[in-house]
Amino acid sequence: MGDAMTRPLLAVTLGDPSGIGPEVALKAVAEPEAQGLARYLLVGPEQIARAARDRFAPSLRLETVPSASQLRAETDVGLLSISAEPLEAFPTGQVSAASGRAAVVAVETAARLVLGGEARAIVTAPLHKEAMHLAGYRHPGHTEILGELCGKKATMLLSSPRLRVIHVSVHCSLREAIERVTPENVGAAIRMAQEAGSRLGYARPRIAVAGLNPHAGEGGMFGREDDEAIRPAVEEARAAGLEVSGPWPPDTVFLRASQGEFDVVVAMYHDQGHIPVKLFGLEGGVNVTLGLPLIRTSVDHGTAFDIAGRGVAQHESMLEAIRVAVRMVRSGAQPPPGSNPRYD
Amino acid sequence: MGDAMTRPLLAVTLGDPSGIGPEVALKAVAEPEAQGLARYLLVGPEQIARAARDRFAPSLRLETVPSASQLRAETDVGLLSISAEPLEAFPTGQVSAASGRAAVVAVETAARLVLGGEARAIVTAPLHKEAMHLAGYRHPGHTEILGELCGKKATMLLSSPRLRVIHVSVHCSLREAIERVTPENVGAAIRMAQEAGSRLGYARPRIAVAGLNPHAGEGGMFGREDDEAIRPAVEEARAAGLEVSGPWPPDTVFLRASQGEFDVVVAMYHDQGHIPVKLFGLEGGVNVTLGLPLIRTSVDHGTAFDIAGRGVAQHESMLEAIRVAVRMVRSGAQPPPGSNPRYD
Repeated sequence: MGDAMTRPLLAVTLGDPSGIGPEVALKAVAEPEAQGLARYLLVGPEQIARAARDRFAPSLRLETVPSASQLRAETDVGLLSISAEPLEAFPTGQVSAASGRAAVVAVETAARLVLGGEARAIVTAPLHKEAMHLAGYRHPGHTEILGELCGKKATMLLSSPRLRVIHVSVHCSLREAIERVTPENVGAAIRMAQEAGSRLGYARPRIAVAGLNPHAGEGGMFGREDDEAIRPAVEEARAAGLEVSGPWPPDTVFLRASQGEFDVVVAMYHDQGHIPVKLFGLEGGVNVTLGLPLIRTSVDHGTAFDIAGRGVAQHESMLEAIRVAVRMVRSGAQPPPGSNPRYD
Repeated sequence: MGDAMTRPLLAVTLGDPSGIGPEVALKAVAEPEAQGLARYLLVGPEQIARAARDRFAPSLRLETVPSASQLRAETDVGLLSISAEPLEAFPTGQVSAASGRAAVVAVETAARLVLGGEARAIVTAPLHKEAMHLAGYRHPGHTEILGELCGKKATMLLSSPRLRVIHVSVHCSLREAIERVTPENVGAAIRMAQEAGSRLGYARPRIAVAGLNPHAGEGGMFGREDDEAIRPAVEEARAAGLEVSGPWPPDTVFLRASQGEFDVVVAMYHDQGHIPVKLFGLEGGVNVTLGLPLIRTSVDHGTAFDIAGRGVAQHESMLEAIRVAVRMVRSGAQPPPGSNPRYD
């Protein structure tokens, strides 16, 4: 396909149609920088996409196509509709089963485009979990939907321009997260950090592993998991040749990484990694799904029902998600083991 | 004493003499801004104080006194020695029992000066826990030393110019921290946040309470503590008239507070609060001890043995600790119930 020279095609989902997803997606793909980086196929309800275009990107040409294969090479932004329902079917700023369903169908459709080789990466706008649940889905988020679709365990990388974080666990209680801190799980997260680093373009990523307990356990005074579960995994990975260190005190390792000392940090649970990345959120936080035979990036914010339809949503995170997806497409790093042979 | 007009006297400990404490203390009190804010009584080994003065603040006059009461009114910086041992007794950059002992004795001495009304606040440089343990002490840190000395349960406030955080628990394992998330403990932390806010000068502090689990439990899907332990405490405090809200998703509440939405955040465990405050660390993080009949602030960094004696330590945190102590002395807020009658 010669993507190193031409612009890759990205499948961009509109997220929950009741939230700010359609707004940030249209605003982002209409940016001159985004137009220069890639071509786009928006995936969502047609009426929602057209309403968002009319309001937030009125000069953008949007070509509806019945399938990705019918997108013309000269089209910058196409639209693959997954619902013919009218605008009123998707109440702005409200939880609804219709919006929950449309959001999930868009993700599944976009993922199949990438798995089938018709698009190079999927970039996603936010879902609303309650709406998904009303529609009968039980997935906590994108990562799990995509993992199920691909039959693989997906892992999420949180990325901001200053900090990249892999989690040992994400969507579970803190009690359950502690149980998941085992040498096996930490080792798997370290390997995932290695994959993330290389796919993001770091030749030999410097990986820092955070501790679980205050001060990484302070020699056993504040818990034993750091010494008994995390340290063995770090030592094994180092013996295998990875540039990895830890367990580091959790309260300073993210600061150190943000100052350039490490390329990727392995966090032990959801908020340990999410708190520091979100503090850099104004610079455009991004989620990247790893461990799957496709490239997927996403905004790191929610549907923001409270400001939906008001035109005030910031699209910096969506634009950064596009940048990261393009960087991954171009990095040339090998796809993970067992990936779909039609990928790249 | 008329401190609103004159400069209050602060007792400043030098911390572990083998670390960067003496350096940051001398650099900070020598700053013109610090000289304008307060007068100082350094508390630590005399030879250490004089060596640090000679090297890091050579133009500073340092008057050794046998007791605080003998400090002359016109002295800007006095020195109360707690050890006559030579410099060599305190090996630079190394853990030693001598340094651990000197550090603790300095804290106890300085605290008694404040409890006895001879100084208005204590500002502390960092301890080294292993050194303290070698010297036979079992306290995890300043907060516990001072709590024992005063016969009260002390609580730590982490403060930076952008963010102020109270913790439900600090120095314990994450497993133990979860057990401590009870309505009683969360309620006590909220009341402490109220005290902190008023002592820092907020007339009616806006208090945000963080959740424990990802997304504050997401309606019970990721754990029940948010709904069963935290929410009741928030509602009770609100019913009592406090301006308090939560439990909020932990990964965004600190960002929101740093943007000005809240004055004080109640964090559920050590790293939940320490990670965001340390990310702002370059602006000068400070620890404030609450719940005691004395004002105490501290740097939020450690002894940094790796750079001790090299002259490269930053003293912004120590300077900010001085600023916060002076603000608390001047705020005029009532000392906590049961405080020493000789206080203020």
